[in-house]
Amino acid sequence: MTVLEPFGARLRRAMDERGPLCVGIDPHSSLLLDWGLNDDVAGLERFSRTVVEALAGRVAVLKPQSAFFERFGSRGVAVLEKSVQEAREAGALVVMDAKRGDIGSTMAAYAAAFLEKGAPLFSDALTVSPYLGYGSLKPAVELARESGAGLFVLALTSNPEGGQVQHAVREDGLNVGATMLAYLAAENAGERPMGSFGAVVGATLGDLSSYDLDINGPLLAPGVGAQGATPADLPGVFGAALRNVVPNISRGVLRHGPELVALRDASDRFADEIRAAVAAT
Amino acid sequence: MTVLEPFGARLRRAMDERGPLCVGIDPHSSLLLDWGLNDDVAGLERFSRTVVEALAGRVAVLKPQSAFFERFGSRGVAVLEKSVQEAREAGALVVMDAKRGDIGSTMAAYAAAFLEKGAPLFSDALTVSPYLGYGSLKPAVELARESGAGLFVLALTSNPEGGQVQHAVREDGLNVGATMLAYLAAENAGERPMGSFGAVVGATLGDLSSYDLDINGPLLAPGVGAQGATPADLPGVFGAALRNVVPNISRGVLRHGPELVALRDASDRFADEIRAAVAAT
Repeated sequence: MTVLEPFGARLRRAMDERGPLCVGIDPHSSLLLDWGLNDDVAGLERFSRTVVEALAGRVAVLKPQSAFFERFGSRGVAVLEKSVQEAREAGALVVMDAKRGDIGSTMAAYAAAFLEKGAPLFSDALTVSPYLGYGSLKPAVELARESGAGLFVLALTSNPEGGQVQHAVREDGLNVGATMLAYLAAENAGERPMGSFGAVVGATLGDLSSYDLDINGPLLAPGVGAQGATPADLPGVFGAALRNVVPNISRGVLRHGPELVALRDASDRFADEIRAAVAAT
Repeated sequence: MTVLEPFGARLRRAMDERGPLCVGIDPHSSLLLDWGLNDDVAGLERFSRTVVEALAGRVAVLKPQSAFFERFGSRGVAVLEKSVQEAREAGALVVMDAKRGDIGSTMAAYAAAFLEKGAPLFSDALTVSPYLGYGSLKPAVELARESGAGLFVLALTSNPEGGQVQHAVREDGLNVGATMLAYLAAENAGERPMGSFGAVVGATLGDLSSYDLDINGPLLAPGVGAQGATPADLPGVFGAALRNVVPNISRGVLRHGPELVALRDASDRFADEIRAAVAAT
């Protein structure tokens, strides 16, 4: 197997070449029905293949939402494997949105599932959840470094209930979300063009200038489109960190399917709007 | 399909009849090798089947650790499906240790994967992670109520790094872990013999008397055995809440395999020690 360049470098190049956009692969049952598909494994497969065919050659990142595949058990996970492999072969980076988090050898097993070269679900990066402390993620950080993969650690999420945990304050005066950002900044120190250890920071959170978002790594920003934020909002939320932001749009693009042309048009439109918003800062 | 009694009632009965013990199904690669198995899907299947055959007829709860199955992709998940079904048929309650957590329709999809009657991975209960706030778990709470299933919410975990998030303090003065316990107590209010919404609280945490552990629901307590706590430590950690504690032991039992008799002896020994510790309080 060829050795991969670090994820941060690969992502930077993809963002420059294709525009900084991540589109979700979210096979909700309601979307399957809207697309005229059955809410079953065949519908799941058709949906995922269509999104990959439409977009893997043009967007920087595709982000399958693991939950929507897992609800069909092992047969759904088999579809997920195929989608990830096809998307990567077609040139997209794949961020597996699985929000895994555990400790010790169990965390190492999740890392092996998604970040070990040759694993059936090998992805370019994985979303992880730090309820067990940033340090619990160490086995995933280590394996990602070996594999040329990356992580996106949940830091400040786009949902209103998130603050209950993420705004709680530690003894050192930092809140939980800011703590995750600080660890990531340390992880990425000195990396060029940027490090491989990103944060999930919602685009719906308003002005984030009280946080140090300068982690020298990517910021995956859900909440654009159906959740209410627009590309034009991004500079006000992220300020100077906007250069490293990868906005995620899911339903805002997917609702235009199943026609390939319509999916591509919707995705191109968002990519253009985001480029314009970044250029204006 | 028959309607299940609520998980809390089923668990209470199993704890009374079989003793309050949860044994993990943790197919680490090192354990597979110790058992003379290959670290592959066939080894995984043999390991899981052996644990189920040895213990599903006698322990209250079996807890498969999803990560160790996911590392083999969809073929590993297929083994997990079979193990869950066989364990339930043999009379054990199955707590799926997957620590899932997300928001909105994605959280609902995880709930559908593990808590919807008829789903390939349907389990009696699921561990969930509340980094996105307790409220983000609502779709899982609702589906669990419908299905007669339960949840175990990560609250105060057994690993040393956990305090970084779980001890952070909210505006109301409660820390994050205590906040989760308070929500669970509200969820379980009035349920008899106990509610179905439990917490994960490590057995390694020393005296927890500053927390209100009286949530009228089960406390899943990892950390006994290989992580260092003993059954005799449990009264000092949990106090009066010990009646609702389900200690989890994984490697402390599994390392005695692959002989069925040795696995059963180890499990029976722990169950007896735990019963004795509970009776002494």
